[in-house]
Amino acid sequence: MENGAENKWGFEDKQEHKAAPAVTVKTSLASIIDSVNKNDPRPVVPLGYGDPTAFPCFRTAVEAEDAIVDAVRSGKFNCYATNSGIPPARRAIADYLSRDLPYKLSADDVYVTLGCKQAVEVILSVLARPGANVLLPRPGWPYYEGIAQRKQVEVRHFDLLPERNWEVDLDAVEALADKNTAAMVIINPGNPCGNVFTYHHLQEIAEMARKLRVMVVADEVYGHLTFGSIPYTPMGLFGSIVPVITLGSISKRWLVPGWRFGWLVTNDPNGIFQKSGIIDSIKDCLSIYSDIPTFIQGAIPQILEKTKEDFFCKLIDTLRESAEICYNGIKEIPCMSCPNKPEGSMVTMVKLNPWLLEDINDDIEFALKLAKEESVIVTPGIYVGLKNWLRIAFCAEPSALKDGLGRMKAFCQRHTKKH
Amino acid sequence: MENGAENKWGFEDKQEHKAAPAVTVKTSLASIIDSVNKNDPRPVVPLGYGDPTAFPCFRTAVEAEDAIVDAVRSGKFNCYATNSGIPPARRAIADYLSRDLPYKLSADDVYVTLGCKQAVEVILSVLARPGANVLLPRPGWPYYEGIAQRKQVEVRHFDLLPERNWEVDLDAVEALADKNTAAMVIINPGNPCGNVFTYHHLQEIAEMARKLRVMVVADEVYGHLTFGSIPYTPMGLFGSIVPVITLGSISKRWLVPGWRFGWLVTNDPNGIFQKSGIIDSIKDCLSIYSDIPTFIQGAIPQILEKTKEDFFCKLIDTLRESAEICYNGIKEIPCMSCPNKPEGSMVTMVKLNPWLLEDINDDIEFALKLAKEESVIVTPGIYVGLKNWLRIAFCAEPSALKDGLGRMKAFCQRHTKKH
Ligand SMILES: Cc1ncc(COP(=O)(O)O)c(C=O)c1O
Ligand SMILES: Cc1ncc(COP(=O)(O)O)c(C=O)c1O
Repeated sequence: MENGAENKWGFEDKQEHKAAPAVTVKTSLASIIDSVNKNDPRPVVPLGYGDPTAFPCFRTAVEAEDAIVDAVRSGKFNCYATNSGIPPARRAIADYLSRDLPYKLSADDVYVTLGCKQAVEVILSVLARPGANVLLPRPGWPYYEGIAQRKQVEVRHFDLLPERNWEVDLDAVEALADKNTAAMVIINPGNPCGNVFTYHHLQEIAEMARKLRVMVVADEVYGHLTFGSIPYTPMGLFGSIVPVITLGSISKRWLVPGWRFGWLVTNDPNGIFQKSGIIDSIKDCLSIYSDIPTFIQGAIPQILEKTKEDFFCKLIDTLRESAEICYNGIKEIPCMSCPNKPEGSMVTMVKLNPWLLEDINDDIEFALKLAKEESVIVTPGIYVGLKNWLRIAFCAEPSALKDGLGRMKAFCQRHTKKH
Repeated sequence: MENGAENKWGFEDKQEHKAAPAVTVKTSLASIIDSVNKNDPRPVVPLGYGDPTAFPCFRTAVEAEDAIVDAVRSGKFNCYATNSGIPPARRAIADYLSRDLPYKLSADDVYVTLGCKQAVEVILSVLARPGANVLLPRPGWPYYEGIAQRKQVEVRHFDLLPERNWEVDLDAVEALADKNTAAMVIINPGNPCGNVFTYHHLQEIAEMARKLRVMVVADEVYGHLTFGSIPYTPMGLFGSIVPVITLGSISKRWLVPGWRFGWLVTNDPNGIFQKSGIIDSIKDCLSIYSDIPTFIQGAIPQILEKTKEDFFCKLIDTLRESAEICYNGIKEIPCMSCPNKPEGSMVTMVKLNPWLLEDINDDIEFALKLAKEESVIVTPGIYVGLKNWLRIAFCAEPSALKDGLGRMKAFCQRHTKKH
């Protein structure tokens, strides 16, 4: 290639993707993980990112593994699938979700996706149109903001209120919505707050959404992972008040985020999505994507039907214990407070008081120095929408969690202002 | 829900996705498959769509199944992966492709994708910018056109020349390219023509592309599936003449399209993609997608390294036999001709002479009536860019293929003009 000739290639002014910000906590966390001191002989304690699979106590159910093995060995699922998913998988998901609903979902209400993440991408693509806006919770899960920005959907944030156990500020929702509001998103059980919405609060949300004529997108990726006093209630229960799109996956409840299997489900007994073209739009959006691996779809009926209650109970017990360890550990750290004991999901928000610390001015600096000095990873709250908070993923082996909290305490004590 | 109130929901004027055309042969074929007579006692012979997995003679290698089973059972691949792919998978693909290259690819040159299909989507997203155009082969694989349209990339077609064994019309390429041409796409071994480009022709393509300063996107999803006199040559061989993006997957050579595992690889020893920002753009594009299932990535080294030569040889023998049956069968049908015996891939183009037929005016009508009367599915050529041709997928059990060709012959005889 002659010297300098590269400059003349036709694609060097291509910049479209470059300006876009990181869209995942994982990407944002990279610089924090990078600041870990490679010479620290202690193991890194990863409390930043909600992936429990590194710990042996969070191993998936053997029935789930069996299901995949059986599907592969059968040789029946090597073919291309269909865009919305193969019928047995769609039916199994409909049945699984219908167990908690007063009406029965049909297979046609279900679209399989590459994890819940792709379900988020699909619904935001469907809602994108000039001028559209969506209402997102703050704090939240930043993938929504990242995708909305790329799809040119305006984001408006309503607050979750720590003093009300992270309930939605419904007055804010009412004030934000206008005729271009395409949807409001809720995440329940909550990431990043570890809260669980009550039946009553979900009903209030449904009624507000109905009043505003805005559909609800309910991210239930942590569905069923509750271990406090508030039982898990799926938003689909209120589908006859307001049309609901439910997003979910097997990532969390089966501890297999790497299997990338999720769903987008319409909870809409009144058929509003059909009449309004949303269904066609979902199908059309899925038609351009590569399908989900067929043998994983083939394994889904067995995974959803055959996993034993035992497995789920043990997981809930482990998470309850971890949440407890986390909550109690935080209480002992002077510069931090956790307004509510986590009752669901695998993460919680902890308030930081940086003014009690010397040489640490905010949550990002805190996380960077903590990684550097103690090899403990936590997520700065600003990455999920709240400055000077931290998000802590407590889905770690109890011993590792205790170790991490101990190091955090020592770190805070060392950095506390002396006077 | 009060009567008529649906009309007031904020999303009913959402139309963005609706106008877009079908982007896959699969979707286009639906109406043809629908016209099969449900009362025909004979089995349907599916020669429309290149998915051989319905036939027992096209079963994947046991080593590939073992690799998936081992990966799942290990419990090591339940975690989230990284956007570009886990390092062992990337390295294994680099090694696999390097076997046929004069230089060694590194793991960093490889990005894993959800089948080759997603690789196509990624590269067209990367090339999309206002005013950009891409040069696509005609006939071709219509997913390119579908994605280009959605990404607002202008498509310009160059012809493949049946009288020159479906070689690229390089004069046309030269005439079509301008400063906004982002890439030219070639598919080798060819879908839909079943042709294989010679080393010499690929070199000519590279030199023309270099002259025009246009990168080459080489779709090698059918890589290594050649069974005639022309050996398979990867385009990456010419990466130092012109920067090449190679797209591929395990779908075809391992007979597992449903496993959805593919790759996008930069063959660019001169580092032009790096300097021009293409690499950043690819990474950024992948960062918004959901990752590829981790355990499938985990299985890839074993799949690529452990599959026995035997398996590949047997597959090539079966395809050679099927291609022969197809070519000879077509020769006996008066209203059809196949200009070149297929030497690669799993499909071929057959010229139709509808003026020899009564009551059949074109390829679509031919395919519809053939499905209805004979339960044989073929793809109208217009779906892949050539009117009054047919695309025939010969990746069927030999007996089924013979049966299908026999029915086509009877059909043509029945419909031949009597004079
Ligand atoms: C709120 C929320 N939604 C969706 C997802 C994505 O889940 P999946 O792994 O199924 O793609 C996550 C992952 O952490 C999440 O926290
Ligand atoms: C030319 C071409 N490219 C890409 C693909 C997609 O392959 P994959 O199954 O790996 O997504 C196909 C599938 O038929 C094809 O024919």
